[in-house]
Amino acid sequence: MSPIKITKDNAKAIFEQYNHILFDCDGVLWLGPDAIPNVQQAVSALEKQGKTFAFVSNNSSASRNTYHEKFKRLGYKGLQKSQYFPTCYSAATCIKEKLQIPIGSKVWVLGDHGIEQELEEAGYVPLGGTDPGLDTPFDPDHELLIVDKDVKAVVIGSTKSFNYMRIASTLQYLLADNKSIPFIGTNIDRTYPGPKGLVLPAGGSVVEYMAYTADRRFIDVGKPSQVLLDAIIDHCKFDRSKTLMVGDTLYTDIKFGNDGNLGGGAGSSLLVSI
Amino acid sequence: MSPIKITKDNAKAIFEQYNHILFDCDGVLWLGPDAIPNVQQAVSALEKQGKTFAFVSNNSSASRNTYHEKFKRLGYKGLQKSQYFPTCYSAATCIKEKLQIPIGSKVWVLGDHGIEQELEEAGYVPLGGTDPGLDTPFDPDHELLIVDKDVKAVVIGSTKSFNYMRIASTLQYLLADNKSIPFIGTNIDRTYPGPKGLVLPAGGSVVEYMAYTADRRFIDVGKPSQVLLDAIIDHCKFDRSKTLMVGDTLYTDIKFGNDGNLGGGAGSSLLVSI
Repeated sequence: MSPIKITKDNAKAIFEQYNHILFDCDGVLWLGPDAIPNVQQAVSALEKQGKTFAFVSNNSSASRNTYHEKFKRLGYKGLQKSQYFPTCYSAATCIKEKLQIPIGSKVWVLGDHGIEQELEEAGYVPLGGTDPGLDTPFDPDHELLIVDKDVKAVVIGSTKSFNYMRIASTLQYLLADNKSIPFIGTNIDRTYPGPKGLVLPAGGSVVEYMAYTADRRFIDVGKPSQVLLDAIIDHCKFDRSKTLMVGDTLYTDIKFGNDGNLGGGAGSSLLVSI
Repeated sequence: MSPIKITKDNAKAIFEQYNHILFDCDGVLWLGPDAIPNVQQAVSALEKQGKTFAFVSNNSSASRNTYHEKFKRLGYKGLQKSQYFPTCYSAATCIKEKLQIPIGSKVWVLGDHGIEQELEEAGYVPLGGTDPGLDTPFDPDHELLIVDKDVKAVVIGSTKSFNYMRIASTLQYLLADNKSIPFIGTNIDRTYPGPKGLVLPAGGSVVEYMAYTADRRFIDVGKPSQVLLDAIIDHCKFDRSKTLMVGDTLYTDIKFGNDGNLGGGAGSSLLVSI
């Protein structure tokens, strides 16, 4: 199914078909720290028509609390934490609801603070992650290279605090116990639009790096994985046939809506390009 | 073709079939800094029988000069620099002989000093690599994020000096000019046996990470790529039908010999396991 092309003339007719809208964030609502002009006003107008929203980002670095602050700063009003689905949250949700790993278990993290925050909020104990003890040159005697037997899952996502110590310690968990510790990847994104017009390495590249190194696949909890869409539909009680996905990336956003049979087959995904 | 299994009884008969032997190094001759017992004596005995050797390593971090010092330190005598084929050398050779990039051109490096040394010896100007200017947190204004138009190739190999600044700057070259700058990867190795019994991320993981991020493939100059075997056979003037490959890794060493039709079809690769 091709993405819908929206114009001034068909916009009303298109949006009339849907009650619920899933918005990608970076590249759709904002670009880095800055709002994309007029988008907040458009979302507000749709809200006045009675549409309900979820905000779905493959970014794993920022927790829902951080998203809430950002939405407020950019002029969005009346949104609830339960409407945000960054992949750090979907990773924690997958561990809790899908894998049913006991609350209180340790989880090894290669990624940023958002993953740690969402794991803690879900009742887990993150290890690794932003631990400054890993900000060192590689040391084969480092205590964090010894596998902690209480770790019950590994979550990997985007991070700029990427070094050999973090990679090597994460690999020990991916290989441990005959590769049996569940491996959750936050997304498959290769790059993202950075500041100064730069194209920069994204979280999916980190996930794929570790998957290649450990020679195993992962549970993908980002777009286009249906693990994420199923969780959103379930949490928000949306009617799939009345739901539209709005995003700017074909292989994640648009595939996400199409694979999920959003829009009752009438056309499930709206590709935006700025 | 299955690898040959060697025993005390059939060793003589096996080696009699060959005049030339290609040895993998790490895991065959040595393990990290230490010689594997009795191997140097075995190589010496084969030399007395008139065999000639090449030493083929997927390691890209150490140059041929560094290999020469290591062989001497471990008791090997009479070897020549022209017998060593680490992949930092095969990368430089590929740029010079296969891609015919003009001498004096700049080459962007993600990898260790061995690559820089071999590029310089071949007449090129390495950029990036071990430059301490890249040992910084990510800075979008960093001057090394601006693509130097004189860079004519990119070489990626193993490094422990892995950070977001190096990855992001390398990505700019892989994407530049519609992805047209040649991209050479030193190997496809996922892991290697490190100290303390650790399994550690290897150079191929770095290469695959950048290939995934940039969404493009690379010229592989490590085992099992035949780009490397063709160069060795050519440089050493070996007769393929009289050449044996000795290695410890099925998907690199043994595939290398088999794909290259070494041994005249009689059995081309010897798998060793310690």
